[in-house]
Amino acid sequence: MSAAWFHYSPVRIHGGQGCTALLENYIGHQKALLLTSPGLLRRRTTEKLMTACPSVHWLVRTVPPYPEMEHLEHLAAELHQEEPEVLVALGGGSVIDSAKALAAALGEGPAWSLSEHLRESRACLNSVKPIYCLPTTAGSGAEATPFATIWDQAEKKKYSLEDPRLYAKAVFLEPKVTISLPPRETLWGALDTLSHGLETLWNKKATPISLALAREAIALMSDFLPRAQENPANLKVRIKMQEASLLGGLAISQSHSTLAHSIGYPLTLRFGVPHGLASAFTLPALYDLIEERGLWRYAEDGALAAKAAALVRGQNLGQLVREYCQPEDVIPLAGRMRSPGRADNFRLNVGESTVVSILQKSLK
Amino acid sequence: MSAAWFHYSPVRIHGGQGCTALLENYIGHQKALLLTSPGLLRRRTTEKLMTACPSVHWLVRTVPPYPEMEHLEHLAAELHQEEPEVLVALGGGSVIDSAKALAAALGEGPAWSLSEHLRESRACLNSVKPIYCLPTTAGSGAEATPFATIWDQAEKKKYSLEDPRLYAKAVFLEPKVTISLPPRETLWGALDTLSHGLETLWNKKATPISLALAREAIALMSDFLPRAQENPANLKVRIKMQEASLLGGLAISQSHSTLAHSIGYPLTLRFGVPHGLASAFTLPALYDLIEERGLWRYAEDGALAAKAAALVRGQNLGQLVREYCQPEDVIPLAGRMRSPGRADNFRLNVGESTVVSILQKSLK
Repeated sequence: MSAAWFHYSPVRIHGGQGCTALLENYIGHQKALLLTSPGLLRRRTTEKLMTACPSVHWLVRTVPPYPEMEHLEHLAAELHQEEPEVLVALGGGSVIDSAKALAAALGEGPAWSLSEHLRESRACLNSVKPIYCLPTTAGSGAEATPFATIWDQAEKKKYSLEDPRLYAKAVFLEPKVTISLPPRETLWGALDTLSHGLETLWNKKATPISLALAREAIALMSDFLPRAQENPANLKVRIKMQEASLLGGLAISQSHSTLAHSIGYPLTLRFGVPHGLASAFTLPALYDLIEERGLWRYAEDGALAAKAAALVRGQNLGQLVREYCQPEDVIPLAGRMRSPGRADNFRLNVGESTVVSILQKSLK
Repeated sequence: MSAAWFHYSPVRIHGGQGCTALLENYIGHQKALLLTSPGLLRRRTTEKLMTACPSVHWLVRTVPPYPEMEHLEHLAAELHQEEPEVLVALGGGSVIDSAKALAAALGEGPAWSLSEHLRESRACLNSVKPIYCLPTTAGSGAEATPFATIWDQAEKKKYSLEDPRLYAKAVFLEPKVTISLPPRETLWGALDTLSHGLETLWNKKATPISLALAREAIALMSDFLPRAQENPANLKVRIKMQEASLLGGLAISQSHSTLAHSIGYPLTLRFGVPHGLASAFTLPALYDLIEERGLWRYAEDGALAAKAAALVRGQNLGQLVREYCQPEDVIPLAGRMRSPGRADNFRLNVGESTVVSILQKSLK
């Protein structure tokens, strides 16, 4: 009835057109590592940011999608000599998560090893370089969380780097950078946000604050994804999607995700299924499980989730997943899809056979 | 379309039965000034807290309702010699706001004057002693804001002390301490929360985050105030009211209040109308103004506000205000009820004659 809960979300958030110019007030003349994607560098989004903040001593690096442990360790070794004072992430969830891992590595010093930390020690971090985030996609909400998903391709594992020191110092939601997102990236992002929202609603660890943020994230994204699909160049629609993404990130930053994410990770790791798609294709089946058992905290949550689940169902995600892998590839992985600390946050205890039936239903 | 907005809310929040015991983890063996009310001291709520945190070096002081400038200056002068390291506020909004003013005075040192700061300088604060809050009422949300309302009885003025350093380090929502709240205090608190929520919905400065929090605060308080009035000893109901209060405080901490609060302050200052009542008796009339002009951001907000306004209307607040003062006392004050920085946050520009008609409507 009154389970213990905790909330802490110290990120400073600036929103609105032109807000990126405020970044300079935070970092002044410091040496900043600007982490971005090759595409954003090519499209000169990076250049525009550097021009908007001319006093900063910029050092630019690009990172590939899906932060990979070994790659990040090499990059950190190289960057120790450059001694950046702060990190600026301009990109989607992958760029932001890479920045978190590098901020830890650069703050802790050359003796610290990301792989050792993730595989063995998991000690609290002592020192992390300040992180500033400028998300260019709408979905991951990574700008609002103190965790980073790190992929270990050598051992085919997914790790979560997590520490309160990994919260960004400040986030800048500049709407215009999301307007050129292609249809598929727009969909993957929206799905990730819907997953963050729904996974909060059916999460044992949800808090009064994360529930409020999740409800708003779901309501906004359910309204605005269809509009973005009809009219991708509408800035007002993009603003709302960016806000929904932030709210979903803020929600998940407190309560973590549950079974939908837990099922999705092996699909990304083994078959390259995009994270937003992998985390969302089971949402309608999971919605059915909660709905059948009446496990909503409030009737309004059921109605909100029903609308979101119908929207996701209409996107035929099973078919999209089957562009990457087939049911016979996926079903044998069911046993490892109930990762502790995630699947057990789900408000219903689910055995392996239920995961199999969720997968069968979701891959049609 | 994309107005600039900012969000920052660094307070650590613990909720759930027994959570006060966690306070000791934060303050250890430090010397803590425990600020409380005479009633809580008498009812031994203070003693229970001190017993739960035995390592702390406690120093206890009580403060009267409505933080008064001159009184706080005397108290600060006396406390400088005691050199407390942290402040713990156990009480309602008045105790918490007093703690904020004293934390500033004790942090800034004996040369700093609260009255000079409020009346003249209003410079940024340099040093504030850490504040920990244990709210014992459900309504003010003061535990979540960086402002304190300070009353200047000599000059019959109300000041707002405000600085990001005034955010509490941590808040502890212990449900059982609110269960003995008498019916009137329960109502005043609930009204304050409904006012914080509605004042966010019709606030020009509302942000995507404060809107999400405000909607939840209104929904919860509209559901649970009637239940608390029917069944005051139900702990589950008290938990929800405490959560609603927190959410309202978090919302208002970002967007400030508007006309309902601005109209209410002179009534508290001159006639002693309780703050929650003074800030809420105009809510139905203000709701009508926004509703008539269709100024809701979303249709859902209108529906949510309609439910809350009907609930407030049913409490006959005009009659309760008239226990303190009559329309002929209040209406001459209309000119000073549109305080800058508050009334101008209202989504509709309102002249003095409109304030008069709001008062007439609300005092029936």
